[in-house]
Amino acid sequence: MHVVVLAGGIGGAKFLSGVRELGHEVTAVINTGDDVTMHGLRITPDLDSVMYTLGGGADAERGWGRAGETWTVKEELAAYGAEPTWFGLGDRDIATHLVRTRMLAAGNPLSAVVEALCDRWKPGVRMLPMTDDRVETHVITEGTAIHFQEWWVRHRGQVPTERFVFTGAAAAKPAPGVLEAIAAADAILIAPSNPVVSIAPILAVPGVRDALVAAPAPVVGVSPIIGGAPVRGMADICLETLGIEVTASGVGDLYGPELLDGWLVDTADAGAAVEGVTVSARPLWMTDVAETAAIAADAIALGER
Amino acid sequence: MHVVVLAGGIGGAKFLSGVRELGHEVTAVINTGDDVTMHGLRITPDLDSVMYTLGGGADAERGWGRAGETWTVKEELAAYGAEPTWFGLGDRDIATHLVRTRMLAAGNPLSAVVEALCDRWKPGVRMLPMTDDRVETHVITEGTAIHFQEWWVRHRGQVPTERFVFTGAAAAKPAPGVLEAIAAADAILIAPSNPVVSIAPILAVPGVRDALVAAPAPVVGVSPIIGGAPVRGMADICLETLGIEVTASGVGDLYGPELLDGWLVDTADAGAAVEGVTVSARPLWMTDVAETAAIAADAIALGER
Repeated sequence: MHVVVLAGGIGGAKFLSGVRELGHEVTAVINTGDDVTMHGLRITPDLDSVMYTLGGGADAERGWGRAGETWTVKEELAAYGAEPTWFGLGDRDIATHLVRTRMLAAGNPLSAVVEALCDRWKPGVRMLPMTDDRVETHVITEGTAIHFQEWWVRHRGQVPTERFVFTGAAAAKPAPGVLEAIAAADAILIAPSNPVVSIAPILAVPGVRDALVAAPAPVVGVSPIIGGAPVRGMADICLETLGIEVTASGVGDLYGPELLDGWLVDTADAGAAVEGVTVSARPLWMTDVAETAAIAADAIALGER
Repeated sequence: MHVVVLAGGIGGAKFLSGVRELGHEVTAVINTGDDVTMHGLRITPDLDSVMYTLGGGADAERGWGRAGETWTVKEELAAYGAEPTWFGLGDRDIATHLVRTRMLAAGNPLSAVVEALCDRWKPGVRMLPMTDDRVETHVITEGTAIHFQEWWVRHRGQVPTERFVFTGAAAAKPAPGVLEAIAAADAILIAPSNPVVSIAPILAVPGVRDALVAAPAPVVGVSPIIGGAPVRGMADICLETLGIEVTASGVGDLYGPELLDGWLVDTADAGAAVEGVTVSARPLWMTDVAETAAIAADAIALGER
């Protein structure tokens, strides 16, 4: 069985570690809208979260970056007064960024860089960036566009937020293998990632949404909202910015019946309904890998109904 | 009094810390032939040795790089199998390289980068790269050119060495201020740096040698060879490659009477003679800053004779 998973960073990585347990062939299509260039380094936070988590190198407690991380370079950059100082640039992480930046500068596409980095991390799933083209999520705040990382990491989303734009998306092409994997999938899952800034950028790459709608495989989403609140991150602020209700139904409606065949919600949201979509409820807390695998198995089963 | 010093890295930095003690206005013209790009980072070893040493940030025991250095990024790069693995890329150092690489990529000349970095380090002398253009010392070994860093750091000079070439030197221009400083100097000193790979690249930048010859100020060199051996580094291998005697006289002859007015040698080499050049002897071991300052003062005094 071939399972395709659309995923963002931390939540997506956690979900994928459960999917991987099921023993299927897994292709993860990962958001690159968070990608950013800082201090001359090209940084791909969601790809790295998935790679480090599945490769056993992630810091589980902090939730992002490398286990055993140190911060020498960051402190030294601050001593030079080099901006920005608010981004969490760990020493171990920097080695990854150096390899990536150098490979990109040499003309390699991002998908080839991911493959090369995964030679070390062996994530056990096929990791594809949503696109090899540069797409960046920007946030319009008080008439100015700032990078999503600045909005998220520096301001914690606590600035007047008008909307999110996926700069470069209109001209982007899906990375090699993305459309093929979707067309050949037996099941397609949308991880419980932020629908506005993790999943929407993937859907904004021309061709991806159409491929999902046309795919013979069922598409099942797992709700990132449990009992009216996001499991992690700032999906609530993001959804409110779009005027969407912060509920399992709200996110289900956002994806909608054209995209979704099934929508898996938490038992706390058992009453959720999405017009034209089969909704099923089960506990969605990804407490450990076994439980997460059970969630993923139920999502696949929901698609087969 | 305005003193101009031509200098390489570690020995040059040590010598400059003595010159600085004399309280004159000092301009250091520093070799950039050792510069290299590794892991996408532009690295300027001699400029950094001088900057860290005069700025109080150098590791005195190791002789190069930053005090309190850590090696996390280097270990991680090795874990990715990223070459080269033989170069000493410290975490603290990397922050300097990141600032430099980013500033160069933004279009700043190297001299502007040095000035910006010195905002932090405050070396107390005016530091000028010999050129803003890219000049790299390559070593011809068994018919192949390798970068000087590879020859020095990786092979410790222990490969058949035919000659040294300063790639890019013919088309290079002296950095802004270099020729002006030489013309306006009251004394010009050649630090006891490696004559073949630290001082020669500076002299190979078109215009520098002519400016030194034409300068009204006397030019005095301090011998890097004491009693037939280099104080540090591999000047002996370098000199032998050129067929030059590894003696104070040999190096004095290499610079020659057109360039030199005075040649300061160690008391162990009191018998040294260089045709057309006033030779003087005194202890040249730079045991501490006060002694190094006394050596520099004697060099200046030799020029005034």
